[in-house]
Amino acid sequence: MSEFDIVNKSYPQIDGLNKATGKTEFVSDLVLPNMLYGRVLRSPYAHARIDHIDISKAKSLRGVKAVITYDDTPRIKFGPRSEDWTILADGKVRFYGDEVAAVAAVDEDIAEEALDLIKVEYTELPAVFDPVEAMKPDAPLVHENKENNLAAEFKIEAGDVDQDLKNSYFVYKDRFYTNQVYQAYLEPMGALASVDLSGRITLWTGTQIPNMMRITYAKALGISLDKLRVIVPDYGGGFGAKMENNVHLITIVLAQKAGQPVKLINTRFDDFVGGNPRVAMYIDIKLGVTKDGFITGKDVHIVGTNGARTVYAPVIVATACYRPDSLYRFKSVRAIGHTVYTNTVPTSCFRGFGNSQMTFVLESALDMIAEELNIDPAELRLKNGIGENEVSIHGWKITSNGLKDCVLLATKKANWNQKRKKRKFFRGIGLACCNHVSGNRAFAREFDGGAGIVRIGRDGNVTVYYGESDMGQGQKTVFAQIVAERLGVPLDIITVEQVDTDISPFGMGSFATRGTLMGGNGVLKAAEDAFKQLAAVAADMLQAPPDEVECKKGKFFLKSSPQKSVSFKEVAEMATFKRAGAPVVGVGFYKPPTELPDPKTKYGNISPAYPFGCHIAEVEVDPDTGQITVTDYVAANDIGRAINPMAVEGQIQGGVAQGLGWTLMENMALDDKGKLINPDFLDYVIPCVMDVPEIKPILVEPVDPEGPYGAKGIGEPALNPVMAAITNAIYNATGIRIKELPITAEKMLKKLKEMKNKIK
Amino acid sequence: MSEFDIVNKSYPQIDGLNKATGKTEFVSDLVLPNMLYGRVLRSPYAHARIDHIDISKAKSLRGVKAVITYDDTPRIKFGPRSEDWTILADGKVRFYGDEVAAVAAVDEDIAEEALDLIKVEYTELPAVFDPVEAMKPDAPLVHENKENNLAAEFKIEAGDVDQDLKNSYFVYKDRFYTNQVYQAYLEPMGALASVDLSGRITLWTGTQIPNMMRITYAKALGISLDKLRVIVPDYGGGFGAKMENNVHLITIVLAQKAGQPVKLINTRFDDFVGGNPRVAMYIDIKLGVTKDGFITGKDVHIVGTNGARTVYAPVIVATACYRPDSLYRFKSVRAIGHTVYTNTVPTSCFRGFGNSQMTFVLESALDMIAEELNIDPAELRLKNGIGENEVSIHGWKITSNGLKDCVLLATKKANWNQKRKKRKFFRGIGLACCNHVSGNRAFAREFDGGAGIVRIGRDGNVTVYYGESDMGQGQKTVFAQIVAERLGVPLDIITVEQVDTDISPFGMGSFATRGTLMGGNGVLKAAEDAFKQLAAVAADMLQAPPDEVECKKGKFFLKSSPQKSVSFKEVAEMATFKRAGAPVVGVGFYKPPTELPDPKTKYGNISPAYPFGCHIAEVEVDPDTGQITVTDYVAANDIGRAINPMAVEGQIQGGVAQGLGWTLMENMALDDKGKLINPDFLDYVIPCVMDVPEIKPILVEPVDPEGPYGAKGIGEPALNPVMAAITNAIYNATGIRIKELPITAEKMLKKLKEMKNKIK
Repeated sequence: MSEFDIVNKSYPQIDGLNKATGKTEFVSDLVLPNMLYGRVLRSPYAHARIDHIDISKAKSLRGVKAVITYDDTPRIKFGPRSEDWTILADGKVRFYGDEVAAVAAVDEDIAEEALDLIKVEYTELPAVFDPVEAMKPDAPLVHENKENNLAAEFKIEAGDVDQDLKNSYFVYKDRFYTNQVYQAYLEPMGALASVDLSGRITLWTGTQIPNMMRITYAKALGISLDKLRVIVPDYGGGFGAKMENNVHLITIVLAQKAGQPVKLINTRFDDFVGGNPRVAMYIDIKLGVTKDGFITGKDVHIVGTNGARTVYAPVIVATACYRPDSLYRFKSVRAIGHTVYTNTVPTSCFRGFGNSQMTFVLESALDMIAEELNIDPAELRLKNGIGENEVSIHGWKITSNGLKDCVLLATKKANWNQKRKKRKFFRGIGLACCNHVSGNRAFAREFDGGAGIVRIGRDGNVTVYYGESDMGQGQKTVFAQIVAERLGVPLDIITVEQVDTDISPFGMGSFATRGTLMGGNGVLKAAEDAFKQLAAVAADMLQAPPDEVECKKGKFFLKSSPQKSVSFKEVAEMATFKRAGAPVVGVGFYKPPTELPDPKTKYGNISPAYPFGCHIAEVEVDPDTGQITVTDYVAANDIGRAINPMAVEGQIQGGVAQGLGWTLMENMALDDKGKLINPDFLDYVIPCVMDVPEIKPILVEPVDPEGPYGAKGIGEPALNPVMAAITNAIYNATGIRIKELPITAEKMLKKLKEMKNKIK
Repeated sequence: MSEFDIVNKSYPQIDGLNKATGKTEFVSDLVLPNMLYGRVLRSPYAHARIDHIDISKAKSLRGVKAVITYDDTPRIKFGPRSEDWTILADGKVRFYGDEVAAVAAVDEDIAEEALDLIKVEYTELPAVFDPVEAMKPDAPLVHENKENNLAAEFKIEAGDVDQDLKNSYFVYKDRFYTNQVYQAYLEPMGALASVDLSGRITLWTGTQIPNMMRITYAKALGISLDKLRVIVPDYGGGFGAKMENNVHLITIVLAQKAGQPVKLINTRFDDFVGGNPRVAMYIDIKLGVTKDGFITGKDVHIVGTNGARTVYAPVIVATACYRPDSLYRFKSVRAIGHTVYTNTVPTSCFRGFGNSQMTFVLESALDMIAEELNIDPAELRLKNGIGENEVSIHGWKITSNGLKDCVLLATKKANWNQKRKKRKFFRGIGLACCNHVSGNRAFAREFDGGAGIVRIGRDGNVTVYYGESDMGQGQKTVFAQIVAERLGVPLDIITVEQVDTDISPFGMGSFATRGTLMGGNGVLKAAEDAFKQLAAVAADMLQAPPDEVECKKGKFFLKSSPQKSVSFKEVAEMATFKRAGAPVVGVGFYKPPTELPDPKTKYGNISPAYPFGCHIAEVEVDPDTGQITVTDYVAANDIGRAINPMAVEGQIQGGVAQGLGWTLMENMALDDKGKLINPDFLDYVIPCVMDVPEIKPILVEPVDPEGPYGAKGIGEPALNPVMAAITNAIYNATGIRIKELPITAEKMLKKLKEMKNKIK
């Protein structure tokens, strides 16, 4: 028998039935009285001066209620990380897809027609698309005031890398390239905005960071924070992309101008050219080892694509610079990261957040080192892997750590030893590990943690308020389970409310794999507070002291004589009557034992808990076509404790499929003018069910001391090791290492031919 | 200088600008995705058997999504006070307008057309419309199981009435009739209902009793309470009518049947014939006095119209039986009230709730007694009026009491003494007093009081949740002022949220003039709780103990050195960060010192505070047409303390206008088949601005010990004395006393002619 009633058990997502039956009201389904529809006019050039915009014809089209250009916006420079945004283009467009003007009309067809009536005169300017090219002295400047197109530089150093590399038995050196990929969430970005008479704005949007976005947008609009309310309805995926984006602000400005609510949902084209795809990176690595396979120093230089304005690329490049440094026992590390403006779509977060790029590189490098040293790649990881209760080179306090178990269980399940020995022609097996965080203290100076509110009214229903954001990954279900477990009630009386900045706690949002641990602890503390209040009433009804009272399966009873009981609903009703109608409101919060890293050294414990993982891929390469098929996949992830094992498995399967797409299929391809040539799902192909093998998840549960019921996060570590596991398997199958993602059949075939030619 | 910053000051309603500019989203403005429109088929007969209903043609009309009859409903007998309701007619219709079937369609026109396609075969039955007739042994029975059509009998007795009347110097005896009037709120009743996949229902409706209604409706639908959520958007008036009504349940059943949201808003016709108008009453009174004008005994018999099913008529008749007994020092009282089924629309609450009917009678009787004794009517009231800190004959503990001041100030302002002496031809002046409650303990056995929640998030905005219902009377504004005063912040940072049974406290609702006192105390306590939490943080920031800290005008400061200060917003932000995102949530409640009346004697203190009033009307009667014009009006009301003087004046002006309409103009008139002949505002005429004189309110503020900042209620006492004040003025002008409302020009002219004939 499990020690839990609800937690650590598999349940379908509490909102799953609604989604499966089409009942869910996504942002795109919302309607308001007098609502208009918005559309954005985007730049057809990667870089051009706007000489003139004529909106007169568009404005006079019947049914058009507002046409806006830069002059209609507050004309404030802003941005979540760097003040290089304007709501619409301020005299110059900087990427193909840049927002030039927008229209609100009574229906979408009229809005579309109005876009055609806006006449813009451009003077094309020289453009640059590659970050390495963009750093060159003669490169065109994306922003005139940004020398060398440098958006940000990040440096970190610990120990004496030069010395350690010098003293190494072997130093692996190479350059890798991770490409730009699109998050491919099923619901495009968009928003519904409504402005009241006092100017207060309500913004409905599927965002991962309702509270943080609100701060950025208030600045962009030149209003105080209290004048903007953000509500997060159900939304169709995010994977990191759904943070700040001009589409939301354009919607707001249209609603302000029209004096009516406006809904603006990206078409798929808009979303491809105006979204926030993954940061492409050039990564140079030097990695030293001793003769017996102990890692010594690591030296890294990263050049990442910022795109035409700064979303979160600099922090992503920084993360790539040092996050995997706490996966192994490095003697010394050094990294320098340059985030570089280019005339391309602004890049930003995508599951893995830089760690996935660097893990691809590091785990590829380790694979080559294992070969060089003739040591089993799994053994190499076990030898170097950081352990339980160790402090990493950057001061990260690793507490629970299932890395070793992940490697042991994955290799066992994948039959690793046998398969590595008996190599088959053009079939291979590869392994990669990863670490990650469960929240990142480095993200905000003033704040870390999570909070919750649990309300129990007269009817005994339990409503949970939280401050993060469920983008479909199942946060609501996990929170419902945590609260149900703590209160001792069945899951079906729990409702988890959508995030509404007017009602919910302030939460950092859903990123950095922080939801379950931070938000989960927040709602757990709130449930504890509510439980105490109810227990006092129940104790009164049962004529016993409050600490004599327990609740299980919706019944309060005496620990000493469980037959003396009263139902949870009766207690809730009595509590309400005793308090003249006041519901039981439990408020709770969790402050993690994290440290703000030292600004210079970046030393400090940035997360309360660290998840680990080890994935093993098997591939088959078709020598005639270059086609790579992933035939088998084992994914062992340390998640502390699975609140909902089925949901964790779903996260792992999704992560692996997404990583598979990135590794083998997906790429945002530009023509020589910087125009995206595949802005749709016909040309930008993501894995379908036929491309994905059966993924075998292994849940490693070392029970984390900080996690709610021991849980750590899973969102990102589900993807981090996939690219290296697959490429290592390809190398194992072919002896070919392609260092530029994606490894398409075309690329593979070319390499196979080169190999064939060499053999000849 | 006032002792207050916000309270006791006049502010426009906080939602006034929205309403004035049409921005408010009333229930009728709401839209949901896939929403259908509902319409109700109503009985064309007052009493008939339903032999057959054919819905086949209606169902097959394109665009019709659901057609329902009784068989589609849960077929449960229910009702707020007596289980004599079904959701649609169960084989028999009992009044003209009774609900027979309903339709949901993609637009209102199709729904309307579908109604025409429903074929119902009826067999007409004998009907009865008058309650006195209905009690007769041979009267047709509205419900077969209700002998003599008796819905309820109420009896109350204190002291020896027979003896006291026998010993009186003079006993005034008469029969009065108060007619049936319609509440004439500007937004008709209606609802929007949505059902989720688990069967949980969300009902948006303008209701005065969201929480109480929910209990009745859960029973009607055969579901548990937690399966029904009620949300109260802004709505266009109630005046007592907007409580339980079949239109809401029909909307729900349509939504269940169609599997889509349904909005059903009454047409004005529907609302007239299917609403819940005022209980018409026959009232027989015997009232004794001593020679020097002291009231002795009062003996009353009331027969009230219940209509075809029981809403709240029995409690209204009971209220008429005894509420004004706590206005004067009665030696003895006795009352019997019969509430009688008739084949007419079900009657229910309307501002005054029985007290208005009885106050009309009592104050008319006192006028006649004053004349008989040749004592000034004002003096008669002062002589008998109950005083401060007295206990009334039914055990009501009168604490604050401004009755005497009301009489003195009203008579002074109206120039009463002079005008009574110098009578002009066909001009007269009349006076009437009233008492009332601020909440009524007799309404629910298990519960009395009010509760609130005050939330302050990171941005420093203050959100207030309450459990009553603002039907336009200004509760939200009053609560905002109370909370702003207590917190020490400006009014414009306060938002008062709509009532939502999933979020708000459980509240009894808006009736019995309970909102300001009960709800106001609830939110005041919640503000206190929130203030304590914030003060602790502010004290920390100002490095002082919490009780050294005060807040005024949005600034926390030290009492000892006010220049040391920190803004309310800064404190809210710091509190949020300190608590890892948890907002400050203040929860508070107020349990009044009321007593559940003795079930037999009804003795017990039913309210924490009792408002009083004295109104003086002046009229002019046109001897040629009978037209009565109210030329001047002084209304002195004891409201404890006015939270918002302008809003109180508005309440008084509205109450007087409504009373004027009832007294002189309004009447729901039936033809001999029981069909309402004036179901629209062309034929049912309510006072317009030309009919109403300048009303001069006088606010008497004795500061109640229980009220929030001393406030008592005003809603109902604003209307209670109007009918008698005007009729007493008419008597003063003409010597004619018409005892049946309304006193139309036609009736008056007839009486004038009779008088003229007598003189001849």
